[in-house]
Amino acid sequence: MADTVKYLLDETRIPKSWYNIVADLPSQPAPALHPATRQPLGPADLEPLFPMELILQEVATEREIEIPEPVREIYRAWRPSPLVRARRLEAALGTPAKLYYKYEGVSAAGSHKLNTAIAQAFYNKQAGVKRLTTETGAGQWGSSLAYAGGMFGLEVKVFMVRASYNQKPYRRAMMETWGATCIPSPSPLTEAGRAILAHDPDCRGSLGMAISEAVELAVQDKDTKYALGSVLNHVLLHQTVIGQEALLQLEMAGDYPDILIGCTGGGSNFAGLVFPFLGEQLRGGRKVRAIGCEPAACPTLTRGRFAYDFGDTGHLTPLVKMHTLGSTFVPPGFHAGGLRYHGMAPLVSLVQELGLMESRAFTQTGCFDAGVQFARTEGIVPAPEATHAIRCAIDEALRCREEGVSRTILFNLSGHGHFDMQAYMDYFAGKLEDRDYDDAALQSALAELPEVTAA
Amino acid sequence: MADTVKYLLDETRIPKSWYNIVADLPSQPAPALHPATRQPLGPADLEPLFPMELILQEVATEREIEIPEPVREIYRAWRPSPLVRARRLEAALGTPAKLYYKYEGVSAAGSHKLNTAIAQAFYNKQAGVKRLTTETGAGQWGSSLAYAGGMFGLEVKVFMVRASYNQKPYRRAMMETWGATCIPSPSPLTEAGRAILAHDPDCRGSLGMAISEAVELAVQDKDTKYALGSVLNHVLLHQTVIGQEALLQLEMAGDYPDILIGCTGGGSNFAGLVFPFLGEQLRGGRKVRAIGCEPAACPTLTRGRFAYDFGDTGHLTPLVKMHTLGSTFVPPGFHAGGLRYHGMAPLVSLVQELGLMESRAFTQTGCFDAGVQFARTEGIVPAPEATHAIRCAIDEALRCREEGVSRTILFNLSGHGHFDMQAYMDYFAGKLEDRDYDDAALQSALAELPEVTAA
Repeated sequence: MADTVKYLLDETRIPKSWYNIVADLPSQPAPALHPATRQPLGPADLEPLFPMELILQEVATEREIEIPEPVREIYRAWRPSPLVRARRLEAALGTPAKLYYKYEGVSAAGSHKLNTAIAQAFYNKQAGVKRLTTETGAGQWGSSLAYAGGMFGLEVKVFMVRASYNQKPYRRAMMETWGATCIPSPSPLTEAGRAILAHDPDCRGSLGMAISEAVELAVQDKDTKYALGSVLNHVLLHQTVIGQEALLQLEMAGDYPDILIGCTGGGSNFAGLVFPFLGEQLRGGRKVRAIGCEPAACPTLTRGRFAYDFGDTGHLTPLVKMHTLGSTFVPPGFHAGGLRYHGMAPLVSLVQELGLMESRAFTQTGCFDAGVQFARTEGIVPAPEATHAIRCAIDEALRCREEGVSRTILFNLSGHGHFDMQAYMDYFAGKLEDRDYDDAALQSALAELPEVTAA
Repeated sequence: MADTVKYLLDETRIPKSWYNIVADLPSQPAPALHPATRQPLGPADLEPLFPMELILQEVATEREIEIPEPVREIYRAWRPSPLVRARRLEAALGTPAKLYYKYEGVSAAGSHKLNTAIAQAFYNKQAGVKRLTTETGAGQWGSSLAYAGGMFGLEVKVFMVRASYNQKPYRRAMMETWGATCIPSPSPLTEAGRAILAHDPDCRGSLGMAISEAVELAVQDKDTKYALGSVLNHVLLHQTVIGQEALLQLEMAGDYPDILIGCTGGGSNFAGLVFPFLGEQLRGGRKVRAIGCEPAACPTLTRGRFAYDFGDTGHLTPLVKMHTLGSTFVPPGFHAGGLRYHGMAPLVSLVQELGLMESRAFTQTGCFDAGVQFARTEGIVPAPEATHAIRCAIDEALRCREEGVSRTILFNLSGHGHFDMQAYMDYFAGKLEDRDYDDAALQSALAELPEVTAA
């Protein structure tokens, strides 16, 4: 038998702590600002939304934060996730490069999102919270929080963008199977929803509207909190189990990556894989090239400005310093629903500003080409978001072939595409369009960035 | 941390041979008969359909048949599959029983079917075959053969029952992603299809019709063969990797099953788990109770007759001795499409006749109750077929609670339900009906069983 394909760790090797890159960065992230006063936020400002443990993680500076045992206990259902050597893809590409992927689609919810959903549900339960609200677009995050809430006996209400709710009934069915309630947004359940419906009864909804509804319910009731699936520091922190496991698994393989690749929507799966390796580098270890991959239609890292902006379209959230296309920017339609966000995690944004990573934008047809090549060699049908990372990894492997050099490339396969087959059908039917973003709209969205003098 | 939840084996522990229960059974299976002459079939009779290696496996009597290295090589993508201790389900049931499941849904195609698809594609490729045809109902088997064909560079044509083709476009998209062609049946591509369409242009199709189309294309062209996903001896043989791995994994756990459970449609996932354990018993090892779980609406093992019958409705296939409801029996509608077959694998049928297993029939609402309880505790959303095994396992665990005894129960979780969420939606909407089969129709189908005097 040839060399090993899968690098598996047993349950005792699930990381015992999350890794906080803030401890190793040469400069600190800018503080979040209050949306009204534009002064730095204190923990108390966030208390209506999050339990105190998560607020403290949001501003933590220590390098390691212990993973509570009940969280590790549930992680054991699918963690450590496999690290796989993509030998068939390598052979198909005729590349001297060594391609590895970390496969997060083995979680029951089908993506990396469950890593933070479990942690957030745990801290909320511990704080005596009874109900969680959240929003979901494509449905990956809503499914994950539904599962996590169920594990800890929390009621979960997911506001799902109405267009997605109608288009993807099976994601909704999955949330209900795990015991959550899924509500099409805008809904008559909230002031925000009622106001929108009064104006436009057929409104198809948006992530911004769904956030407003979820936040409104959370702040009204002391037993209800809100949960977010990406962007925030504590969410990225929880994802670092991915990179920490990959470090151990590559040690088993006797290898170390030259290039690390992840797709970037809010930034959490990218950070989860990459930050532990960047930590090694920042503490004097080996240097890696890290590449964030985003859709050309929503080019936050490659075309956005590094500036303070709102996290939502309704301007209810704090201001954070990040790469942003402007909170009013609306990308054209494309299939990777998880990569449609106007902003980027403040920590990923800072890492790029510090020159610790690169970013690259891809059009969707090329990404689906790569996704189908991956499925036909490695078997797994990837989520449209993850095809961005695959496209970049294949491009780098082909560059190795041209240059006649071998490099070790590791990418994050953040989820499977079992609930995204309509996108594949559109691809095969030749219906995918590579629509560019509207530059005039981008410039006008950027012109509307809030003025901030305080920080 | 509590005891281990997942029992993982590394790739070197993938079985090196398949286990053939025929070598250990106290009596031999009755020979298959030619549909016209009703005399025992010779290998040459099957050559238009299958490559010789598979025909020889169909009649093999040796205990172990070596797994070719290229097949093990591809198995490594997902095998050994995990054995999981269902601790959360045990806790929810308050049972002293120990519940384990072997999870075959980790394959890229989502079920155990890939174990035999890879083997069949390999032997066909080795014999110089260029194209494979098959039929599929729910789509699990068609997906698996699509993936396997792609791995070996074989063209795959899948005739999918038109009703399913229209109802489950995402299964079709998956086959196409792996490079196969999926054709709604009846189709204008075959004589059989054209004849049906001439009579009924809107015909919704049936598995029997799809088999006729797939077989017709295979026999017409020497470079094309036919592949079947269950029932036949060689298919069951290939599935025995499941039980062999489970034996090793339970050894890791320091445990041995008192009860083994699998759902039974054609019989292959049940046999794959159970036969290696029955082999231990037949060779003087510990006795196990094996329970086959079938739908009450298609009660092949519990209500069928053990007799010679045709495998298809068109009476083109050989006659095999099996539990059958009669080839003209049509079950009422229910959601486990993989369990709608009128017959049962001859080897599983013989094992039941020999008193080596029991069988039990379940209505679908109770199965979905069990499936949802499983999803809410263990996380995985099971395929409707697999919920039959879960129902039975939960019933046995509850019996342990009543009796105050601990038993070790192992069931086969043969696949996930990611492509079956419509069934869950119907369940939550209260739309599932527990329709009984029509006893008069069963009696009349049994009355039509072919008369056989030869064997």
